[in-house]
Amino acid sequence: MNPTFMREAIRLSLVKMRRHHGGPFGAVVVRQGKIVGRGWNQVTSTNDPTAHAEVSAIRSACRRLKTFRLDDCELYASCEPCPMCLAAIYWARLRCVFYGNTRKDAARIGFDDDLIYRELARPISRRKIPMKQLLRKAASVALVEWKAKTAKVSY
Amino acid sequence: MNPTFMREAIRLSLVKMRRHHGGPFGAVVVRQGKIVGRGWNQVTSTNDPTAHAEVSAIRSACRRLKTFRLDDCELYASCEPCPMCLAAIYWARLRCVFYGNTRKDAARIGFDDDLIYRELARPISRRKIPMKQLLRKAASVALVEWKAKTAKVSY
Repeated sequence: MNPTFMREAIRLSLVKMRRHHGGPFGAVVVRQGKIVGRGWNQVTSTNDPTAHAEVSAIRSACRRLKTFRLDDCELYASCEPCPMCLAAIYWARLRCVFYGNTRKDAARIGFDDDLIYRELARPISRRKIPMKQLLRKAASVALVEWKAKTAKVSY
Repeated sequence: MNPTFMREAIRLSLVKMRRHHGGPFGAVVVRQGKIVGRGWNQVTSTNDPTAHAEVSAIRSACRRLKTFRLDDCELYASCEPCPMCLAAIYWARLRCVFYGNTRKDAARIGFDDDLIYRELARPISRRKIPMKQLLRKAASVALVEWKAKTAKVSY
């Protein structure tokens, strides 16, 4: 844990917000005491709803390190990650996460990550966005083929 | 609901897997009866752990429609979305979701979305990836400034 890296995440959250890139959130990915990826919210400036600070920092670090796994990296985020970013952290297999503001702090200024956390924990039938299953049998062909495939990169 | 769009999502899941782009998953975003975004898993081929089919389809549709909101769009995914993709669906505000395979089907071929669903529902202190709060006061400055900011695009 090194507060210097959190200060950089906070600096990004401020500077990029002031330049109208998006919401007030910054993040950095750190490997062996060095920043290997920087990210900040760019949702509204790039028309990408997935361009949160943490996702952007992870994408940046993966590009730089030429890998889809960040096992030996830490993430410093100016705010507690939303469910999308937290799941991305699990997929990227980051070692640990440091965060500044909490999701409650974010909710108070209009970013309702907490609602999405609650929705994800609900059974499909009780979610706000309706979800329906369709053509399961046809869809399963790809899964069966993947399982049998020998030349594949698992993750 | 139109099975034709699900068939296209399934087609992508098969074709792109066979071309070694990544896991066996495809998705399309549909607006007013037309496909406006296509996506497929490209995690291992592009070194981007966030390049799942649904995230890729959402990004593609947003680029094309020049918006970060897909309120009037539907998503067809060959498999039930993982928590990262589902949260992205909420952020993009898609109207509804159709899916083929379930998360249990995906788990059986080695994609453990279900583990991440369970982790997200846990309190921070009980998660596998350690998370610690740091410099909250310094981090809060950006949130206060955002709240007071008048020239901003909310989402």
